[in-house]
Amino acid sequence: MFTVIGERINTTLKKVKAATADRDADYIREDVKKQEAAGATYIDVNAGARIGHEEEDMKWLLSVVREVTDLPLCLDSPDPAILEMAYGMVDRPPLINSISLEKDRFDPMIRFLKGKECRIIALCMDDSGMPKTVEDIFSRAKTLVEELEAIGVKRDDIFIDPLIQPMSVAAENGTMAMDAVEKIMTELKGVHTTGGLSNISYGLPQRKVVNRIFLAMMMVRGFDSAIMDPLDKEIMAVLTTASMLQGHDTFCMNYLKAVRAGDIVA
Amino acid sequence: MFTVIGERINTTLKKVKAATADRDADYIREDVKKQEAAGATYIDVNAGARIGHEEEDMKWLLSVVREVTDLPLCLDSPDPAILEMAYGMVDRPPLINSISLEKDRFDPMIRFLKGKECRIIALCMDDSGMPKTVEDIFSRAKTLVEELEAIGVKRDDIFIDPLIQPMSVAAENGTMAMDAVEKIMTELKGVHTTGGLSNISYGLPQRKVVNRIFLAMMMVRGFDSAIMDPLDKEIMAVLTTASMLQGHDTFCMNYLKAVRAGDIVA
Repeated sequence: MFTVIGERINTTLKKVKAATADRDADYIREDVKKQEAAGATYIDVNAGARIGHEEEDMKWLLSVVREVTDLPLCLDSPDPAILEMAYGMVDRPPLINSISLEKDRFDPMIRFLKGKECRIIALCMDDSGMPKTVEDIFSRAKTLVEELEAIGVKRDDIFIDPLIQPMSVAAENGTMAMDAVEKIMTELKGVHTTGGLSNISYGLPQRKVVNRIFLAMMMVRGFDSAIMDPLDKEIMAVLTTASMLQGHDTFCMNYLKAVRAGDIVA
Repeated sequence: MFTVIGERINTTLKKVKAATADRDADYIREDVKKQEAAGATYIDVNAGARIGHEEEDMKWLLSVVREVTDLPLCLDSPDPAILEMAYGMVDRPPLINSISLEKDRFDPMIRFLKGKECRIIALCMDDSGMPKTVEDIFSRAKTLVEELEAIGVKRDDIFIDPLIQPMSVAAENGTMAMDAVEKIMTELKGVHTTGGLSNISYGLPQRKVVNRIFLAMMMVRGFDSAIMDPLDKEIMAVLTTASMLQGHDTFCMNYLKAVRAGDIVA
């Protein structure tokens, strides 16, 4: 089963920022309901864009979101203190977004995660910056998995983010991410891989085409989760179709259901 | 470089059948020019649909096609005698479609191919019928490559067709084809893989979506040629985009050119 982390409740998006500033709960509620109906597994909540307001905005967003959905939430902040506060506000085990190997993030996150009931997104980032090779990504992933297992986190609760980098920056960024995903899924058996798909198309025109095709290609290599927009019908159609082609859809039932619902159109 | 075998000059298509019966050379010429402009590497010519007329139809089609394009042709018939006749009519080394392990096809094709300047599509078919497992496909591919090498055919001139079978028949038909392609490309290094992509979607609605996504997924596993419709803009957009994502498009130049030409639209 592919894990869809719905990325729409994020104050870096203009409408969400405005709705958050105005405390427009209806806007947020509607969006979350639509993401749930479209097949989100988690609803990501990120309140980072209004500088100086992250804590109060996160509190308000969580209070609105949790009353309208039973889906588990993905608590999204670079700040361990915000994540700890947010963790205290949810009813079901959340996905925490994220830990990395950056010193000022790693230590407090490890302290916080110990004994908590949650899943965790682990970014292949350290204080030297973005990874530059498949080996870079893999060795960071391995360290993260070892450190998380050492405090009792199960592999099934770890989502490794290889940090997808734009094709417009280097022609090998696509294969670097794909090769890294395959290596992680093969050599660190039991973990998941996830990430922000749309990074791949940064700086290119017609980005959604690139994101869609990249999703299908990444899935072939083992990618089993993405931080994405569940209301993007075309990318959800790719997900349904690629899952069928991977043999995960007996009698093509999900595919046929999606076609009947008008969600897959040639 | 991906090899696009343009499949449109085939008398099983209603309009081509009528144009062939009426000796409507303009229709055929226009179609071939469009396939060339759209990026076809080979133009496939198949005259098999009008029973009892294959030889004269193939002669006529080839005489029309060869005067309008400098592209090499893909001569497409199950009948070795027709292929031999067709081979005598072309100016540049053609791609022959096809040989298989079926007894009544294999022996005359081997006799015919010996010493000829051409490339060859080798179907993973034998007298027991369609392959049922990855091992089935691979062992047939291996035999075909060995037999062809024994008469002097170079690996670069061999296009193995794993025989893509419909998802509507079995949920593992997609992964069987993908796994077979990867095994062939890895263990029989130097050969190519090709095939009729659209078989995968036989019996399903919205077939073109399935064909497109399957192309991207197959490419990840090493598939480097397809028998397809170069006038299908969406599938050609997938080809351009997936090639870029595989790192085959320095500075994304082909992708950007296709976007500017209006050929890639989200």
